Amino acid sequence: MTDKRTELSDLGEFGLIDKLTQGFTTHVPQTIKGVGDDAAVISISDEEALLVTTDALLEGVHFSLMYTPLMHLGYKAVMVNLSDIYAMNGIAQQITVSIAVSNRFPVEALEELYAGIKKACDFYKIDLIGGDTTTSLSGLVISITALGRAKKSDVVYRSGAKENDLLVVTGDLGAAYMGLQLLEREKEVFKANPNIQPDLDGNDYLLERQLKPEARRDIVDLLKALEVKPTSMIDISDGLASEIFHLCKASKTGCTIYDEKVPIDAKTSMAAIEFNIDPITAALNGGEDYELLFTISQSDYDKIAGNPNLTVIGHMTDANSGVNLVDKNGALLPLKAQGWNHFSGS
Amino acid sequence: MTDKRTELSDLGEFGLIDKLTQGFTTHVPQTIKGVGDDAAVISISDEEALLVTTDALLEGVHFSLMYTPLMHLGYKAVMVNLSDIYAMNGIAQQITVSIAVSNRFPVEALEELYAGIKKACDFYKIDLIGGDTTTSLSGLVISITALGRAKKSDVVYRSGAKENDLLVVTGDLGAAYMGLQLLEREKEVFKANPNIQPDLDGNDYLLERQLKPEARRDIVDLLKALEVKPTSMIDISDGLASEIFHLCKASKTGCTIYDEKVPIDAKTSMAAIEFNIDPITAALNGGEDYELLFTISQSDYDKIAGNPNLTVIGHMTDANSGVNLVDKNGALLPLKAQGWNHFSGS
Repeated sequence: MTDKRTELSDLGEFGLIDKLTQGFTTHVPQTIKGVGDDAAVISISDEEALLVTTDALLEGVHFSLMYTPLMHLGYKAVMVNLSDIYAMNGIAQQITVSIAVSNRFPVEALEELYAGIKKACDFYKIDLIGGDTTTSLSGLVISITALGRAKKSDVVYRSGAKENDLLVVTGDLGAAYMGLQLLEREKEVFKANPNIQPDLDGNDYLLERQLKPEARRDIVDLLKALEVKPTSMIDISDGLASEIFHLCKASKTGCTIYDEKVPIDAKTSMAAIEFNIDPITAALNGGEDYELLFTISQSDYDKIAGNPNLTVIGHMTDANSGVNLVDKNGALLPLKAQGWNHFSGS
Repeated sequence: MTDKRTELSDLGEFGLIDKLTQGFTTHVPQTIKGVGDDAAVISISDEEALLVTTDALLEGVHFSLMYTPLMHLGYKAVMVNLSDIYAMNGIAQQITVSIAVSNRFPVEALEELYAGIKKACDFYKIDLIGGDTTTSLSGLVISITALGRAKKSDVVYRSGAKENDLLVVTGDLGAAYMGLQLLEREKEVFKANPNIQPDLDGNDYLLERQLKPEARRDIVDLLKALEVKPTSMIDISDGLASEIFHLCKASKTGCTIYDEKVPIDAKTSMAAIEFNIDPITAALNGGEDYELLFTISQSDYDKIAGNPNLTVIGHMTDANSGVNLVDKNGALLPLKAQGWNHFSGS
């Protein structure tokens, strides 16, 4: 090791992954796509590809057990991974689950966690095929790997967007982030006075989006039914803005999106205003929506027009135009990706 | 959650996995074997199977950074997973690597870790295809998933051993455990007086077995060359005794092994005696050897006889005879599997 010391926060998560994996070469002809998309792609036959993705959730970083029921946590940990398979336009089939826990957890707590994992497996028709359970000196760590399949000709990468393609998002955005704000506020209130009852009434939608998100398998089926193959796709885990930058970087394009087109539920907007947050900021930078963001050729527009699950929010431009947001007054503003940086702060 | 509280240590690692995964059902026809072997087995074509395994290493539980160079740690974390693929008689092809680190690690430390991972990938001809890098509130966590392939007809499970099959082990046992004892002793000496130079001279073999083990890919090739397909196989990660119990349980057999047949290097024996440990105890219960343990039909004996990599240490019996060790005096003693239980103690 050299004497030089570079802080992790100097690079951020994506810069760090780039730096750590840059020297690696490919040895196996079956590896079609390695690091750098929502999932890796491996050839398994002339026609079919295997999709592989892995994501870890850590207590104190990705969740707080003060307000996350273990059953929901198990469910969500599976969703986070399935979402990456669907973002490749594939169908998830299996998962492995590695858990590290401290002895402060009784077996019954882990049974709750696995009940949530089982619920996700049963509902999404996937098999738990392996794992590892070990002790941890401090918090709970859940690391899941998901495997999926797709016809090779169906796989959608981040890199296929072309200038003038339409940018489409599923569902609505920002709700999971506002759910998190509500839970964090109640946690502070509870810490100050454990006798106060939580004030979460009427916010079921926001809480459910945070605590029990659903991965959009239905969109993979819908796109097939509509006979639309996106030109590029990514899931929204770190926030819309951050994901747009990933698509643009991989596809070597720019992008223009329209503030007023971004789908935001009325409950999200109301909660945002209550917290003095601009709703569009929650949608752009909140993260954890687990919706899909994709581009389609303009010639496919008629196939998706009017579908309540899909909203066109902008279009791809040439790379030199950059990534921009048109605000409600028609002004063109350069977009910034704040997203999540797990290495900043704490 | 019920009010009942069962401690994790009451069940142990394997009992816990059994309990947590018992209610899961299979939804996907391609899943051939899920939880319960060294790796899961998934059908990918008429002839071929995909093998999947996952294992996590945690600081303070599986390794101490006081004496584990990060490059070796990266290398070893890969070996632990490849070993499980080879134990299915398959060839490893890809890995994903998830890392959680606290901000106390500089980027340069992670570069060392990844240099070890790259060395393993280059030497074993496997591709790094994905991963996840996140912050941890305390120690370093490395979770790896390995993928491999085998012809379906070549896959070897734990469950295929038959009465009278010969039990064979590769290499020699107990060295990694004695290497760990040496390192732990030096750690205590160093803590007491940081100016004392470490006394590790002449113990290179034991230290290398602990710090930089090699997974036995060569054995998969050797068995093919010898035209031997084992009837059952497992890798030795938790100690010979524990693995024998796994084979017997899965195959519904008993087993008799001979103390004096168990291959132990002279350096291992000398170190064991210095530590007042019976060398056979280090071999039976030490763990982390990453050798392969397998059974073959007696009719295959001539094919392996005299091979310096392979030692016959006993034979399988009927289940009612139990698992026994014949000691140097010819006495038959029931074998106990101590192995590693990551939930006991600490």
